Amino acid sequence: MTRSVAASLTVDKGNHRHFMLKEIYEQPEVISHTFGHYLDFAESRAELPEGAGIDFTTVERLSVSACGTAYYAGLIGKYWFERLARMPVEIDVASEFRYREMPLKPGGLSLFISQSGETADTLASLRYCRQAGQRIAAIVNVPTSTIAREADFVLPTMAGPEIGVASTKAFTCQLSVLFSLAIAAGRQRGFLSEADERRLVQAAVELPRLAAHALKLEGRIERLAKELSKAKDVLYLGRGTSFPLALEGALKLKEISYIHAEGYAAGELKHGPIALIDETLPVIVIAPFDALFEKTVSNMQEVAARGGRIILITDEKGAAHASLETMETLVLPDVAPEIAPLVYSIPVQLIAYHTAVFMGTDVDQPRNLAKSVTVE
Amino acid sequence: MTRSVAASLTVDKGNHRHFMLKEIYEQPEVISHTFGHYLDFAESRAELPEGAGIDFTTVERLSVSACGTAYYAGLIGKYWFERLARMPVEIDVASEFRYREMPLKPGGLSLFISQSGETADTLASLRYCRQAGQRIAAIVNVPTSTIAREADFVLPTMAGPEIGVASTKAFTCQLSVLFSLAIAAGRQRGFLSEADERRLVQAAVELPRLAAHALKLEGRIERLAKELSKAKDVLYLGRGTSFPLALEGALKLKEISYIHAEGYAAGELKHGPIALIDETLPVIVIAPFDALFEKTVSNMQEVAARGGRIILITDEKGAAHASLETMETLVLPDVAPEIAPLVYSIPVQLIAYHTAVFMGTDVDQPRNLAKSVTVE
Repeated sequence: MTRSVAASLTVDKGNHRHFMLKEIYEQPEVISHTFGHYLDFAESRAELPEGAGIDFTTVERLSVSACGTAYYAGLIGKYWFERLARMPVEIDVASEFRYREMPLKPGGLSLFISQSGETADTLASLRYCRQAGQRIAAIVNVPTSTIAREADFVLPTMAGPEIGVASTKAFTCQLSVLFSLAIAAGRQRGFLSEADERRLVQAAVELPRLAAHALKLEGRIERLAKELSKAKDVLYLGRGTSFPLALEGALKLKEISYIHAEGYAAGELKHGPIALIDETLPVIVIAPFDALFEKTVSNMQEVAARGGRIILITDEKGAAHASLETMETLVLPDVAPEIAPLVYSIPVQLIAYHTAVFMGTDVDQPRNLAKSVTVE
Repeated sequence: MTRSVAASLTVDKGNHRHFMLKEIYEQPEVISHTFGHYLDFAESRAELPEGAGIDFTTVERLSVSACGTAYYAGLIGKYWFERLARMPVEIDVASEFRYREMPLKPGGLSLFISQSGETADTLASLRYCRQAGQRIAAIVNVPTSTIAREADFVLPTMAGPEIGVASTKAFTCQLSVLFSLAIAAGRQRGFLSEADERRLVQAAVELPRLAAHALKLEGRIERLAKELSKAKDVLYLGRGTSFPLALEGALKLKEISYIHAEGYAAGELKHGPIALIDETLPVIVIAPFDALFEKTVSNMQEVAARGGRIILITDEKGAAHASLETMETLVLPDVAPEIAPLVYSIPVQLIAYHTAVFMGTDVDQPRNLAKSVTVE
């Protein structure tokens, strides 16, 4: 196995109690760094670096494979590629994709996402696509990794070494790369005007400042986490790009607090999971005030009517319009709706972190988990 | 709102304690009835009925939308269409699909699945696709429903009225239609030989007998359910077509027992959910002895090594090869791997049913849930 770059660097926790918290706090900087690699801030346009010169104009359909947190980043990317570049995206967890015998047209583009670049199932999916004559792009945090070496286009995340087993900054840096790619694809394919592109790149430029703002919620989240640490189960709900973030939030809480959390598309609530709701169940709702907000509010009302305790993560407008009682409302700064998942990730990560700390688990090395899953 | 056919028929529970159990037991008959509508048993070939004469040869990509259990049926259908007909399938829950602004090529084919034919989000997705110039196919149990009326191709399930809120026979009949369609598509597209088609249709002919055989496990499942009813949480794992069935199994248990069950692709276990595993957590593994069996066994070993209690649903070969201690092993008859989900559904439904009965919940009318979700 390749020795990873992370292992060869000296890393310490700085003033932080855990690597995970340090890594959460590094996000404004590393997100900025990653965007700087893919976006030309001065010209307000996407500018893919050398080695990443993908021609998206000929891509009929992008296939994406990844595992765990990287898969959820890909799911958010799917919304972006489809919305900004009108490019259909097929996405699957790598352990399913590799055995599914997907029909793939030769010359198609396949994208793989992996922090370590060594994830066994993701690598096997890459090799399946290579055999099927696909062009291969890879978003990795370790540029010397096997997945990077076997890709035609290497798209590095500039997150730096990530030590906490539960991924945080690697996830938001994956999102930063995906967002940049979607802008580039949108321009190339003629679906984004110059003005749209400028607006989106400027939103990205604002991001580190907004992420830093979001980190200021830590004190409130710590108090909330004390309550959450008593819960046996937690639901996370969202719509649109907040849906994969709900999945990621639930995964994070599972991984480090061992509380059984589950994420759902808010619209699926009535098709089953609503049966779980009673006054013991906290429901974390991720809902910026966007085009889907009203729909999500109606789902929250269903939760509230059944005694569920709501934790609403929103912005000022959302907080003002929700008009229902919550256990806690976390108010984030205004952010362009497209890029909201990058800011909303921060409270989601802090909730998992502080809940785990209250429960006394080994946050950086949770039981049963390995940082890089190099076996199948 | 249209009065449904179900409501206008006289239905009773017969000798069964609940409608749900009656409906589980009706499956050999209604599956046979549904297959009879789509397959020519004498000629051993798929023969789509009048009104369902879909030309699959020109379908570049099928898009499928549904909610809840019907969505999981669609997920299994995706595997079938891709494997048997090399037809790429894009599938999404309807509440996400309708707002996602999916790029759709005019003339494409979209498929909607709904027991009632009135599901609000599914209907809205249908209308979105209609506007985008798609041809519309619908698998419904109520042929007079709105979704049926608005479709170009109506594909009825012959399940008869389903009264239990938790869908059982409607689900397996949806699977029967999807399987038949995938065979028809495979032949039309030239990927299935006459011999393949004959083999698959004969497997379908065998199905009612195998389903009846599976029902004989009820006594064992009842004893197992007594143990399960003490669990706070349950995980369901599977690979391939057993993965969506794991999702459906977890949904069923949630819906009627209010135990927090969650389904996962077995290969994703190591990417997070394995942190939940301790000696209090039952893990239900759906694993016929197929090409993916060995991979699933290695996931079971990881569960066992961490003290998780395994309930293995498999066949004789699987039981012989698994070679690890389980809390219970349920042995099903041999079945062609392609069609296995139809047989494996039965123990999955019986587990949910009997667990709920032990818990004393209102099985046919679980809290918070409605049979047909006609609001968003």
